[in-house]
Amino acid sequence: MKFLRVNMTEKSIQAEDVPQAYLGLGGRGLTSIFIDAEVTPTCDPLGPENKLIFAPGLLSGTTLINTSRISIGAKSPLTGGIKESNVGGTVSAALGRLGITAIIVEGKAPQGELYLLKIDENAEARLLPALGFKGTRTYALVETLQKDHGAKNGILCIGPAGENQLASASIQSTDVDGRPCRAAGRGGLGAVMGSKGLKALIVSQGGKHPDALADPEAFKGAAMIFAKAVKEHPFSGQLMPALGTAMLVGPINAAGAFPSFNATQGVLDGWERISGEKLAETIKARGGKSGHMGCSQCIIHCSNEFVDAQGKYVTAALEYETIWATGGMTGITDLDSIARMDFLCDDIGLDTMNTGVAIAVAMDAGYKPFGDAQAAIEMLEEIVKGTELGKAIGNGPVSVGKHFNHHRVPVAKNQSIAAYDPRGIQGMAVTYATSPMGADHTAGWVVGQNLAAFGGKLDPLSPQGQVEVSRAAQIATAAFDCTGLCQFAATAANDVPEAGQALLTLLGAKLGTALTQEDVNALGVRVIKAERAFNRKAGLTNKADRLAKFFYEEPLPPHNKTVLVSDEEMDRTFNF
Amino acid sequence: MKFLRVNMTEKSIQAEDVPQAYLGLGGRGLTSIFIDAEVTPTCDPLGPENKLIFAPGLLSGTTLINTSRISIGAKSPLTGGIKESNVGGTVSAALGRLGITAIIVEGKAPQGELYLLKIDENAEARLLPALGFKGTRTYALVETLQKDHGAKNGILCIGPAGENQLASASIQSTDVDGRPCRAAGRGGLGAVMGSKGLKALIVSQGGKHPDALADPEAFKGAAMIFAKAVKEHPFSGQLMPALGTAMLVGPINAAGAFPSFNATQGVLDGWERISGEKLAETIKARGGKSGHMGCSQCIIHCSNEFVDAQGKYVTAALEYETIWATGGMTGITDLDSIARMDFLCDDIGLDTMNTGVAIAVAMDAGYKPFGDAQAAIEMLEEIVKGTELGKAIGNGPVSVGKHFNHHRVPVAKNQSIAAYDPRGIQGMAVTYATSPMGADHTAGWVVGQNLAAFGGKLDPLSPQGQVEVSRAAQIATAAFDCTGLCQFAATAANDVPEAGQALLTLLGAKLGTALTQEDVNALGVRVIKAERAFNRKAGLTNKADRLAKFFYEEPLPPHNKTVLVSDEEMDRTFNF
Repeated sequence: MKFLRVNMTEKSIQAEDVPQAYLGLGGRGLTSIFIDAEVTPTCDPLGPENKLIFAPGLLSGTTLINTSRISIGAKSPLTGGIKESNVGGTVSAALGRLGITAIIVEGKAPQGELYLLKIDENAEARLLPALGFKGTRTYALVETLQKDHGAKNGILCIGPAGENQLASASIQSTDVDGRPCRAAGRGGLGAVMGSKGLKALIVSQGGKHPDALADPEAFKGAAMIFAKAVKEHPFSGQLMPALGTAMLVGPINAAGAFPSFNATQGVLDGWERISGEKLAETIKARGGKSGHMGCSQCIIHCSNEFVDAQGKYVTAALEYETIWATGGMTGITDLDSIARMDFLCDDIGLDTMNTGVAIAVAMDAGYKPFGDAQAAIEMLEEIVKGTELGKAIGNGPVSVGKHFNHHRVPVAKNQSIAAYDPRGIQGMAVTYATSPMGADHTAGWVVGQNLAAFGGKLDPLSPQGQVEVSRAAQIATAAFDCTGLCQFAATAANDVPEAGQALLTLLGAKLGTALTQEDVNALGVRVIKAERAFNRKAGLTNKADRLAKFFYEEPLPPHNKTVLVSDEEMDRTFNF
Repeated sequence: MKFLRVNMTEKSIQAEDVPQAYLGLGGRGLTSIFIDAEVTPTCDPLGPENKLIFAPGLLSGTTLINTSRISIGAKSPLTGGIKESNVGGTVSAALGRLGITAIIVEGKAPQGELYLLKIDENAEARLLPALGFKGTRTYALVETLQKDHGAKNGILCIGPAGENQLASASIQSTDVDGRPCRAAGRGGLGAVMGSKGLKALIVSQGGKHPDALADPEAFKGAAMIFAKAVKEHPFSGQLMPALGTAMLVGPINAAGAFPSFNATQGVLDGWERISGEKLAETIKARGGKSGHMGCSQCIIHCSNEFVDAQGKYVTAALEYETIWATGGMTGITDLDSIARMDFLCDDIGLDTMNTGVAIAVAMDAGYKPFGDAQAAIEMLEEIVKGTELGKAIGNGPVSVGKHFNHHRVPVAKNQSIAAYDPRGIQGMAVTYATSPMGADHTAGWVVGQNLAAFGGKLDPLSPQGQVEVSRAAQIATAAFDCTGLCQFAATAANDVPEAGQALLTLLGAKLGTALTQEDVNALGVRVIKAERAFNRKAGLTNKADRLAKFFYEEPLPPHNKTVLVSDEEMDRTFNF
């Protein structure tokens, strides 16, 4: 249980006991409360005052399944507010097994310098020079790092986009196969890492000293119950391994809420060519992999490995949101082009969502026609070249809108929406607008509460009841994101009472205190309060809790609705 | 809109207007109300007084998706009560398009005679001699019939088991590929068909005169809404095509409710080897088919085609209940043996459930060891040979219990339970015990209401609330079974309000009268009342609404519960 503080100005590393104020926190709870406490809200996100914190979840490093999410926090160069972006892969469990509660990267290396931070199996950390990797893309970087340091390391790294401090830059994480194909994409945290002069974090997976559990026996029993429920739930046990997240392409198009052609259509003509079923079928026919394991200790296996017609690896974990951003928004209904863009985003180190939407805005502005896959791929390469257009795209949709003087920019707090149009599922309008994170589908996914086919009871086209479900989802998610658990394991915890109880037992057995559901909710509220406090001090008032104007003015076919949640309703979301 | 009355004693066929009393009825509603009205309840089920009625659903023959179920009714030689058994395939839509409301087979051909009933594209019916097909198994029969009469016919037929009038004899139906692989398995209706001297029903799929719709425009609109909901629902649109009904092997084992080793265990050791995932994986690796279309106008595609290691066809639509009966109950955890048994049951014309359970009872009695696939296959062949043992097995579990003087016979009203142990899901105890059909999972499937992972709110191990959900499910199912719709389309109708409303509109637009949900429920009640009235007159009192005694006395591991629903509770089920 310790913090590693890495000062990039001084090139010093210090291990310290976890300060009293942060005890019992992990994941997003820790990163957000830490940023609110230690980062000057008005600072330059790319300057030395900003801090970048990596925190495994409270349950990461234990024997519990699917606890591979690591939260990364900082002030965001994209939103200007607080940011937590979490990612799976291998590093969270690795840090947990080393007994490291968080790594905090402070200061800033002098311009032109570049470093690796290596943490060995004894939790000893060193900064290593990395100038030789300047400009290196992530796949090549990781391949070399694994040769140099061994394949039994988990790696978090940035590509050229992060080095160039672009606001869509991601931090990429290696999956269990050692490929940098999983992304902490949102909020431009790769740019913060780049600004610090840190190219990669190399973490040994050989740690053997996780923090002691307060009650190992209770933990073991509850972990078995929880795993059983996740495995037995048709969603996490059967649907996710069969089709992955891309299963959503069909239902969301069916709901008329699949933002297409830069959010001018709610149904994509040709969605069948990029559906989960088509993806699984294509992968199967070519000998790729579905139901593939991506993250440490995962038993859900929603991942996949997309191969080309010759059976050669193209990209891993082609996900729903990526298919939407690079496919639906751009009108490109060709899985091979989409998979290529997904690979390029991973390799350059870019958020697929913010980047796909940036390309869509450029197309909508008339720069290139919708559906032109070659043009889209060339725009991605422009980012690396660092041309004016490349910078505009790499900085995201708002920057592209300014570049082309185009008004239709689907964002909240400067961050692109995700693959659910807020006019087609009004509850997502509330989450996008009010989340302290900017438009973020993972901050309060209320699709299930809206679509009847998912058991939803609300009318997705009406504002009625949407604030309430978004509030509840945002609180529950803020708490869940403290645990290190994957959100796909949450379904079982929500549906199966014993699994929900097991989760309380697990947290209690880790922390040494009995927890109720109310305690967990209180934690969620505490996290959101800290995030909002930071944002307020950074200058984001309730005026920032709005969607881009066109969502209120341009109706979305086929339902021809605008966002109907009033500003007053939006402001009611956080009534605490 | 007409009845075809076929008198097998006189070899006469008469078309008549649908009598007033049956107007507006279809499917199970028609067969059950007809049997109650026209069949002497105390008659010999295999004698000339019994009648066999084939009735497509109210919506069969229309353009609506998934309306391929045909209901077949008679007094059952297995239960001694009324029976409706329905099956998909191609005949229901074919009869609907010919404007035939029902075919009624009466009387009995003289001993030794055998006939085909052929209905051409003008709805003209003829009886053709079929003595040459005596003893022919169904695959060979159908192959010859298609050569003789053309592949564009749907066929319902019996195999040797039906000719030999065994109480587990099925009526097999051809699927869209023309194979007799779908079964109206339950209740021994194949024996009734055999007793009449009818080997097969050959129905042209070329009919062009379905009954007129009262409101074609309203029908068309509602049909589109309904189809959309079915396609978009994750269960019918994604999970069923990916894994088929075998997806249940995992969750039901997980619930400890998968009756194994003749219902002495609730979890089958080795269930993973026969799970839906393993089935899909095996089929994929060998080049068979999953997500395969089995029935006319189906858009769900839950079917599959199982092939051997050389890629050669073994059987089609290997279903959950069959995997259970021939695998779980017998302890045979080898998909190749299970697929072989499924094929043999289809080919001989046997209910896989009643037959698999009969074999399991023989094994439990010590005749052969559990898990002996060779022995199980030999027992199936004994049925064809007509030995004493073969007769016992072909007549079902109770007959095997008597043969070996063995007490553990998992039935209600002499019919085997299905793949949900009533001690592990107490609601299924209510349905099995009280359904007028005998133990029948399709008469009131309350698994979803019991298992949390399916959204269930009840405790499956407690009798609390089970009578109420079973009652509601039995009423809803009795009404739904009048429509010709497949039950897998019901999920969308239940979950999505517009789809539920569309179903009311469809029925109203067919019948020319506005319908409410209350009207539909009243229909369900009317059907069950007729069935119970028949059963009472046939001598089945409330004492018949019980499960086999051992279910109340022998606890089922791992939960170690017996059936806890009291007789008084059982008797409360039908409070109308």
